[in-house]
Amino acid sequence: MSVIEKCTAYTRARTARESGLYPYFLAFDGRDAGTARLADGREVVMCGSNDYLGLSTDPRVTEAAARAARQHGAGCTGSRFLNGNLELHDRLEQELAAFFGKPAALVLTTGYQANLAAVAGLCGPGDTLFVDKEAHASLIDAARMSRARIQWFAHNDTAALAAKLERLPGRGGRMVIVDGVYSMEGDLCPLPELVRVCEEYGATLLVDDAHGAGVLDKGRGTCSHFGLTDDVPLITLTFSKAFGSIGGAVLGDEDVIDYLRHNARSLMFSASASPANAAAALESLRILRTEPWRCSSVVDNADFMRRELAALGYEVGASTTPIVPVGTGDELATLQAWQLLVDQGVYVNAVLPPAASPRLRTSYTAVQTRAQLDRALAGFAAVRDRVLAAAPAADAA
Amino acid sequence: MSVIEKCTAYTRARTARESGLYPYFLAFDGRDAGTARLADGREVVMCGSNDYLGLSTDPRVTEAAARAARQHGAGCTGSRFLNGNLELHDRLEQELAAFFGKPAALVLTTGYQANLAAVAGLCGPGDTLFVDKEAHASLIDAARMSRARIQWFAHNDTAALAAKLERLPGRGGRMVIVDGVYSMEGDLCPLPELVRVCEEYGATLLVDDAHGAGVLDKGRGTCSHFGLTDDVPLITLTFSKAFGSIGGAVLGDEDVIDYLRHNARSLMFSASASPANAAAALESLRILRTEPWRCSSVVDNADFMRRELAALGYEVGASTTPIVPVGTGDELATLQAWQLLVDQGVYVNAVLPPAASPRLRTSYTAVQTRAQLDRALAGFAAVRDRVLAAAPAADAA
Repeated sequence: MSVIEKCTAYTRARTARESGLYPYFLAFDGRDAGTARLADGREVVMCGSNDYLGLSTDPRVTEAAARAARQHGAGCTGSRFLNGNLELHDRLEQELAAFFGKPAALVLTTGYQANLAAVAGLCGPGDTLFVDKEAHASLIDAARMSRARIQWFAHNDTAALAAKLERLPGRGGRMVIVDGVYSMEGDLCPLPELVRVCEEYGATLLVDDAHGAGVLDKGRGTCSHFGLTDDVPLITLTFSKAFGSIGGAVLGDEDVIDYLRHNARSLMFSASASPANAAAALESLRILRTEPWRCSSVVDNADFMRRELAALGYEVGASTTPIVPVGTGDELATLQAWQLLVDQGVYVNAVLPPAASPRLRTSYTAVQTRAQLDRALAGFAAVRDRVLAAAPAADAA
Repeated sequence: MSVIEKCTAYTRARTARESGLYPYFLAFDGRDAGTARLADGREVVMCGSNDYLGLSTDPRVTEAAARAARQHGAGCTGSRFLNGNLELHDRLEQELAAFFGKPAALVLTTGYQANLAAVAGLCGPGDTLFVDKEAHASLIDAARMSRARIQWFAHNDTAALAAKLERLPGRGGRMVIVDGVYSMEGDLCPLPELVRVCEEYGATLLVDDAHGAGVLDKGRGTCSHFGLTDDVPLITLTFSKAFGSIGGAVLGDEDVIDYLRHNARSLMFSASASPANAAAALESLRILRTEPWRCSSVVDNADFMRRELAALGYEVGASTTPIVPVGTGDELATLQAWQLLVDQGVYVNAVLPPAASPRLRTSYTAVQTRAQLDRALAGFAAVRDRVLAAAPAADAA
């Protein structure tokens, strides 16, 4: 059988589109920090972006991007390794390391490639990776690329992790891989216990802080929130969430970062971040340092929505981050709820397996107004009876 | 042993820096289409970028990037799959497919991730990948990520490929993976024979045309150059070379692209190309359509340099593309030659194992002036005796 025969047989997306319940690749043609315009002209309240601090459309950030494109070009046409490195990339690394409190940083072109660098740049055949079952897809891809042995442990279950480490002493290296904030439920990793278990078993801990950096602890992220930045040897970041741009970074000790600069293939064999993207990330970092109110505002907005959605009867979990999952029932019910909300002018993310169990993922920004959130709540209220008929009951509070 | 102990033991880069022969991560702080300024203020003729058409600093391209950042934001803060898709991305796909003559295109955030999508999105355990030994690193990483079985064949050796396909009938799918233009030597793949062998053995051919697209056949690339676009089921592109931006694409049939849209993890789990990057790639494509002189000009410039470098006694190979390798001898000799040239105001790439055997890689752009190329040649002339003392003799012409 040819590798592309499966494509002819793949009809799931076509069927979904034909049924009118297709929640993917919706094209936007305008956005601000709180709303977005669909290609057909309808405006929706954006409750499904990761623009946590509202910086992606901040004029200071977009002007920094525009200026850098004019000054340095639209792209660097080469890897940082050979011919695509700008002082701008080096400066971004220095300021990231200083802000997050690690000795050194390595900037990559996407957050996805930052995770590939940290995992596949350091681990290989003979090593064992212990990966939280809910870890982000990019970490799983990185683990596969490394060709190390992969051991899964139940989500946030440090006892199960310890048992696996105990059972598999091995002679190769061992890395434990978790998210700081999990993207679907918005829950935090149990960092103090993870640090303790990794120290006990001599495993290297990697925390992907894509959703925590820029938000928790005045932007310093999950490790700083727990006061454990020094105890986590590897932290990865993305610029496509709180930083409003795109790109990523690995934070660690000088010698680890220097090793990765010369061995991480997703760095060496990919063109560097465009001047616009690097400049936007740097400008966002500088704004973050002087406007910490954004970090509390986004959590306040999410807390407000969590409370109000629960009051409407929705099952919303118990996270303390900008991510508020909304229970919807099965796949069909999730798709129907997504469509009902879009029709009400509310954009959320429909999450289906294999990404996670069916649900709506909602998330908020620091700059959404109460009026915008009230509009979103009115949409949720209007569809409540139809959505809740299919959804699991909310736990009694 | 911990996975990061190897970093403490890694001293190769430090030693190179201390010896003054360290050719990597040089920081530039200004560029135009033919020269670049080093961080210490020195200007060099840029003979080591992949900005083949000189578009990365073209004001139309940089203004398109700046405008898109202002209009749509510095980033989309989400994957195209869920919440980061713009009409701009869809339009870029339509125009790429039309220009390159394939039914459909899928735009990704980097060329590296386009290769991950095409290979790891279509192949998995049970499939076999037949990979040219000189294929780009991103294809090798993609092959590893796919967890398919990997079979290497000697560079451009279609008889060896056929023998491997004959010996390994297997029941899984089979993909043959090559570059259109090889990045280090600038040579083309033997596409007619590859197509014939793949058809004979029922293997799916993937051509990574990173260095051919935008250059060969008025920009339509290697497959079009051979008149075989319809016969190559999968073509991948990058925007960080001729297109002067960053990003990538997979070209193929509608059903293949639709399958990848819903199964390629490097697409679904990575934020979309920033508006600036997507707009710059689109503007470059439009310029390319109306200014085909750029495609011949870059080859003319490279031909001129190839001829003149050979006249100086350098070993320059026999490519017909913008890439001109220069033989230098062993690793130390390559580093010394690189440093001598930088001191003469000529920037080239020092290539060392494991990327390829030691050499200098030079490459040219469509907009470099004869005066700039003459300056580069003066630099090569000034260091010739010292470089050639260590280099292999050029073949007698």
